[in-house]
Amino acid sequence: MDRTRFPVDEWSLIESELRRDDLGAVETLFAVGNGYFGMRGNFDEGRDSHMDGTFVNGFHETWSIRHAEEAYGFARVGQTIVNVPDAKIIRLYVDDEPFVPFEADITEYRRALDLKTGVLTRELVWRTPSGKHVRIRSRRMVSFVERHLGVIDYEVTVLDAHASVLISSQMLNRQDATDEYRAKPLSGDEDFDPRKAESLTERVLIPQLSRERGGRYLLGYRAANSRMTVAAGMDHRFETLDEWEQSAHLDQDHAKQVYRIRATPGTTARLTKTVTYHSSRGVPTRELADRCDRTLDRAAEAGAVQLFADQAAWLADFWERSDVRIGGAPDIQQATRWNLFQLAQASVRTDGGGIAAKGVSGSGYGGHYFWDAEIYALPFFSYTTPDVARNALRFRLGMLPAARERAAELNQRGALFPWRTINGLESSAYYAASTAQYHIDADIAHALMQYVNATGDLDFVARGAIDILVETARMWADLGFWRGNGVRGFHIHGVTGPDEYTTVVNDNLYTNVMAKANLQAAVDMCDRLLRDDPDAYARMALRVDLDTAELAEWRDAAQAMHIPYDEGLGVHPQDAQFLERELWDLDNTPDDKRPLLLHYHPLVIYRFQVLKQADVVLALWLQGHEFTAEEKRRDFEYYDALTTGDSTLSAVVQSIVAAEVGYAHLAIDYFTSAIYVDLANLHRNTADGIHVASTGGVWSALTNGFGGMRDRDGQLDFDPRLPEAWTELAFSIALRGSRLRVTLTREAIAFEIASGEAVTVSVRGSAVVVMPGQPVSVPLAHQGVVIEGTPASADIAGQRRPDGSVITASIPAPLVGEEPE
Amino acid sequence: MDRTRFPVDEWSLIESELRRDDLGAVETLFAVGNGYFGMRGNFDEGRDSHMDGTFVNGFHETWSIRHAEEAYGFARVGQTIVNVPDAKIIRLYVDDEPFVPFEADITEYRRALDLKTGVLTRELVWRTPSGKHVRIRSRRMVSFVERHLGVIDYEVTVLDAHASVLISSQMLNRQDATDEYRAKPLSGDEDFDPRKAESLTERVLIPQLSRERGGRYLLGYRAANSRMTVAAGMDHRFETLDEWEQSAHLDQDHAKQVYRIRATPGTTARLTKTVTYHSSRGVPTRELADRCDRTLDRAAEAGAVQLFADQAAWLADFWERSDVRIGGAPDIQQATRWNLFQLAQASVRTDGGGIAAKGVSGSGYGGHYFWDAEIYALPFFSYTTPDVARNALRFRLGMLPAARERAAELNQRGALFPWRTINGLESSAYYAASTAQYHIDADIAHALMQYVNATGDLDFVARGAIDILVETARMWADLGFWRGNGVRGFHIHGVTGPDEYTTVVNDNLYTNVMAKANLQAAVDMCDRLLRDDPDAYARMALRVDLDTAELAEWRDAAQAMHIPYDEGLGVHPQDAQFLERELWDLDNTPDDKRPLLLHYHPLVIYRFQVLKQADVVLALWLQGHEFTAEEKRRDFEYYDALTTGDSTLSAVVQSIVAAEVGYAHLAIDYFTSAIYVDLANLHRNTADGIHVASTGGVWSALTNGFGGMRDRDGQLDFDPRLPEAWTELAFSIALRGSRLRVTLTREAIAFEIASGEAVTVSVRGSAVVVMPGQPVSVPLAHQGVVIEGTPASADIAGQRRPDGSVITASIPAPLVGEEPE
Repeated sequence: MDRTRFPVDEWSLIESELRRDDLGAVETLFAVGNGYFGMRGNFDEGRDSHMDGTFVNGFHETWSIRHAEEAYGFARVGQTIVNVPDAKIIRLYVDDEPFVPFEADITEYRRALDLKTGVLTRELVWRTPSGKHVRIRSRRMVSFVERHLGVIDYEVTVLDAHASVLISSQMLNRQDATDEYRAKPLSGDEDFDPRKAESLTERVLIPQLSRERGGRYLLGYRAANSRMTVAAGMDHRFETLDEWEQSAHLDQDHAKQVYRIRATPGTTARLTKTVTYHSSRGVPTRELADRCDRTLDRAAEAGAVQLFADQAAWLADFWERSDVRIGGAPDIQQATRWNLFQLAQASVRTDGGGIAAKGVSGSGYGGHYFWDAEIYALPFFSYTTPDVARNALRFRLGMLPAARERAAELNQRGALFPWRTINGLESSAYYAASTAQYHIDADIAHALMQYVNATGDLDFVARGAIDILVETARMWADLGFWRGNGVRGFHIHGVTGPDEYTTVVNDNLYTNVMAKANLQAAVDMCDRLLRDDPDAYARMALRVDLDTAELAEWRDAAQAMHIPYDEGLGVHPQDAQFLERELWDLDNTPDDKRPLLLHYHPLVIYRFQVLKQADVVLALWLQGHEFTAEEKRRDFEYYDALTTGDSTLSAVVQSIVAAEVGYAHLAIDYFTSAIYVDLANLHRNTADGIHVASTGGVWSALTNGFGGMRDRDGQLDFDPRLPEAWTELAFSIALRGSRLRVTLTREAIAFEIASGEAVTVSVRGSAVVVMPGQPVSVPLAHQGVVIEGTPASADIAGQRRPDGSVITASIPAPLVGEEPE
Repeated sequence: MDRTRFPVDEWSLIESELRRDDLGAVETLFAVGNGYFGMRGNFDEGRDSHMDGTFVNGFHETWSIRHAEEAYGFARVGQTIVNVPDAKIIRLYVDDEPFVPFEADITEYRRALDLKTGVLTRELVWRTPSGKHVRIRSRRMVSFVERHLGVIDYEVTVLDAHASVLISSQMLNRQDATDEYRAKPLSGDEDFDPRKAESLTERVLIPQLSRERGGRYLLGYRAANSRMTVAAGMDHRFETLDEWEQSAHLDQDHAKQVYRIRATPGTTARLTKTVTYHSSRGVPTRELADRCDRTLDRAAEAGAVQLFADQAAWLADFWERSDVRIGGAPDIQQATRWNLFQLAQASVRTDGGGIAAKGVSGSGYGGHYFWDAEIYALPFFSYTTPDVARNALRFRLGMLPAARERAAELNQRGALFPWRTINGLESSAYYAASTAQYHIDADIAHALMQYVNATGDLDFVARGAIDILVETARMWADLGFWRGNGVRGFHIHGVTGPDEYTTVVNDNLYTNVMAKANLQAAVDMCDRLLRDDPDAYARMALRVDLDTAELAEWRDAAQAMHIPYDEGLGVHPQDAQFLERELWDLDNTPDDKRPLLLHYHPLVIYRFQVLKQADVVLALWLQGHEFTAEEKRRDFEYYDALTTGDSTLSAVVQSIVAAEVGYAHLAIDYFTSAIYVDLANLHRNTADGIHVASTGGVWSALTNGFGGMRDRDGQLDFDPRLPEAWTELAFSIALRGSRLRVTLTREAIAFEIASGEAVTVSVRGSAVVVMPGQPVSVPLAHQGVVIEGTPASADIAGQRRPDGSVITASIPAPLVGEEPE
């Protein structure tokens, strides 16, 4: 990160000079949103941009997937998030000269995203071609309080001359505007990246409504195929002491309110613009327009001052619950808070919707929901703002019918959740790295149990969420099978684990371990429900057609679940055949061949021991009780050297497990790369949107990695690993209605009840009871074992097995290794 | 086969009554072609048809494949054979009433494809609505002698009245005619079948030329994307004693020559129509039109009588070389000859082109070339008409540059031939069942060696074909790797074998066995060339950058090639993990769930021990010397029970190995289903064209299966298995310039030199020298061991391994099997 351009500030992301570099990435960094809708950090005045994007969570278009080669059960319906009308445009002309930020002569400049107030501010002075100086100040926010509201405050002051000033506030349908159209590259073109969204080539937003009244404009549309509806509105309040006049323009794709001001020196003209979005699966746009009116009416009543104040108040609450304080590292403190703020922007007002991989900050991955939400984002919410986690889980529950149908299509009982989706249907056409990731079922069950453990919210389970546990357990019991020959036990074949550099394998360790937990959780929760609420159990059993024989089957399958282990190497194979693969020579793979997925055919990658992301290591974290400390260390060492980190889901997990097993330097290295994934655009695709999973993982790395926190069935234990360079690490944990403040220093870990009842936790296995008003400090003799150095891939590539044979490596270098006798 | 409709005739396929059933399949059965171009068996008069198709081998359109999810190295260019202008149309009107075959009142009817004369004849009497009787006789052929020529002879006789007769001879661009357009079903539709051709939705044939002169018409086009050019022509000669007049019509997509006749009772009007096609990769259509003129000029000079006579003479030669005589089974004799005739129709005049999976009889598989040609069709030609095999191998040699590029794209040295292609580029978008079939390299090398062994044509090898052996061996040496741990030796991972119901596996037995032979053949031929022709060797070594160290590497890899074997079951696993899969319960899979590929997601199928087609069993045939008799029997028994036969490549192979190991009844059952694949439309997709691979396999089943013939490095051995119901099996084998006539009876196998020098063969290991003019008869004590019964899948599903454990089966029935303790 360029610290001259982006100076350190613990509560803001500040840009101190205007540069065209990384246009798309910077748009993402300065995006504002609330989980329901988001506006990218384009300049108000438009022009140069990577993507002028505004996104409403879940508002998408569908299209028929045309497989180049079709097969039974392949995904049929593509889903792509739509760029809804851009309501944030405010163009400025002084003496008919347009203000074009990247071309203008700018004498002062500062842009900042203030994490405490939730407002993006830009202040600059423009020297016009005729030598006049114009101060422009704008503030922009998407409200966390009013789900459908955004506010823009735009001030213009000609400092040293009279001038004719024109402010043109606009709303524009960019999705279908021809000047915004970018053709999808033909497959023959080299410039492909499967991580981007599919471009839509037909008109998407069919105009339904456009109206203007008293400076308020509304545009309404229906998406051509998905039939979803959206309405966007903007309203204006204009103030100046100078003379001015206004005019209006409206057509189906464009609305424009223009102010002409005869500006006198030093007099400020201020435009307050409120914008709103309402969307639905099919409600007529008339009705949505009425909702827009109500939002804008309420905003007008409150006024800008109040709206900005409400935003700051909301964030004060948020930080009280969610802040992680890091002593002795202001740069890391800043990056950490920026990451946590992104979690809020991606999630807090999704309400009934899902948490998309890019939040509402970009169109990457088509606006889809993945298991990123459950495994990476929800831990943060379950332990700080459980209502958000509950909403996200209810959203998954709503997808259960589609998941049941998908399971049937895949010839399984129960439910199979889609790997990527907006509307509940599997949308990935490349099944080997998507539908085959059956583990998503277990991930959802895991997140549900984590939420229940953190909150004690059994009511949520009893009132329907248990169906998720039942139908996922049912799927596992049906998918797996009993083997009597060779390796006995319960086996799961033909699945893909989290790591996408091997696909469709047998007995993927992560999948088996997580499925085991899923089966056991279903049995446990059914038992518990039967005991606590026999009526609710009876209704559930009827609803999902469950009998006790099936529960017994799940219990047996969980107990007998095969966990592959290689005695020779002393590691858990990622899958049954993983250790039989050749080793990829990562040390000799040049940077311009990374990430591997963009430079090698899947068939080539699949043939090697090389990982896109943590797989076994993720299991070591999530199901740590299944492994001994020694096993964790050996597994971490083996896989760390094979992991490219081509996925941003990887570094945070590696950081957590590195901290646990003792690779303290690696832990901080991985953590640092995780917090800068977007801030430093480390994966070169921040332009497509924030990596929300990584931002969630940052919180987990802080609390689970350095804080050493683990939750086993609701029992929290802390085995801390404070990094050497830090003086302190402090955070809050919401636990069954209480809030526990945790402060870790080198000498001790302290607990305090911030609100609620007493809480019992443990430190390195010793119970600690924390009573309200009675802080407890537990002395720490150490911060865990520390292993010097790193597990180098070179060591493993040359590693000898117990029989003395050498493991070979041969890509991209020519074949080497043992010669035949 | 409905023997009332299609009566037995040893030299014809006869249809004795007109029926609308299986319209598409019957069009295929009565298609005529010569390998260069073909016309489907639509009626001259047009109207009702499944597909009015005319195909020129290799004349295709290209299109950019749009992957629903893109990845590096995925196929980019789709290729689809084009329906060239239909020149066979002759419409008939009597008193302005159109003759519409399927609606007309037909009092006599007979259609026959005469395998001796190579002519499709139709004779019928039509009772017009006004009660007049009209005899219509048509003959149609595509010349084997004149590659670009087709002849149609059309006679009309009003038997019992005066009438106004109108004969309208037409040529029509159906590819782009809107009335022929069929939209590709959206992927959401259920009616998909990956075995069909991709529909082209844009205009394909861009008109370049249309002209008429003296009743001769020419139409010329350029394909929009591929830039290939084609010209089609038709010429007419009309004779009648009645009064008549003619008129002409021409536009860019349609040509029409109309004859109006004042017909008198009993007077025959005869139209002789010659048609021609010329195509090229890019020669201007003007030039192609000139070639059409020359073909039509020559045809006019010769006259129809001579052209039909030439065709019969060519076929007399063909049958002399190629006939397989079966004593005691006229129905099988007929079906056999029809199959062999199809081989001629698909292949003999491809000249520089490839042999497509459907020949020129339909658009199935998009007109693509597969390994079907090398493994299934070429054996017939190598041993009966070697020039055709040589042409096909030269065609592959021409694709070597593209195969080199593809190998590089897949990160391999050497060459990787595409699984499906027309222009040399991989055209399959589903790599798991296509690009991953690396075995195609070994298949091509195998066919080349077979041709060389049969012909002794080392000159072909020396003059360039050796490059195929070198570049394929190089690919194998680079793809495989040495393993020191676990199972030592040379291993090949991440490939798909012939069987498409398991994909991307390690150490596929077929692949490893064939790669071994490929490596060894390359070494042997290099050694031989170095010895015989050092200069040619030196040029080759320079051309392909070969040194002796590389040869040593190939020899070592071949010797150490890992051949998986399971001691417990005593069988060769299809791949390293095959025996760890669950068993599919085929006995309880209903017919309406077959073929499996149309009713189960690949992920489901891949999880089970279930085969689309012979895989290990194919290796048992092609590389029989690698296996003991006992191994062959056990492998056959194991895999036979797991094989669905959903691919038509399967039955012929199963027949051959069933005969060898002693399952005589199975051998004849599989053979019977193979010869009737198309005749009885057993796979319900004969409408898309002939299954050429199966027709070739029929010849192999007769000679290799029942004849017991094997060729080991040019040494022929016979271990016969005459089916019980047959009295005799006789065929000819071309061997290094000689032709050997083989006659197998129950008591003896007799050899006779039909032409050429003396030949040495062996019978069950004992050498037999056959001198010209001195037939030899070798007495046979038996026809091999005979095993009663069949290897039932039920037995295997319940089979116990040596440790007593049961192998389970669970699809589509619920999970059963061993319960946990």
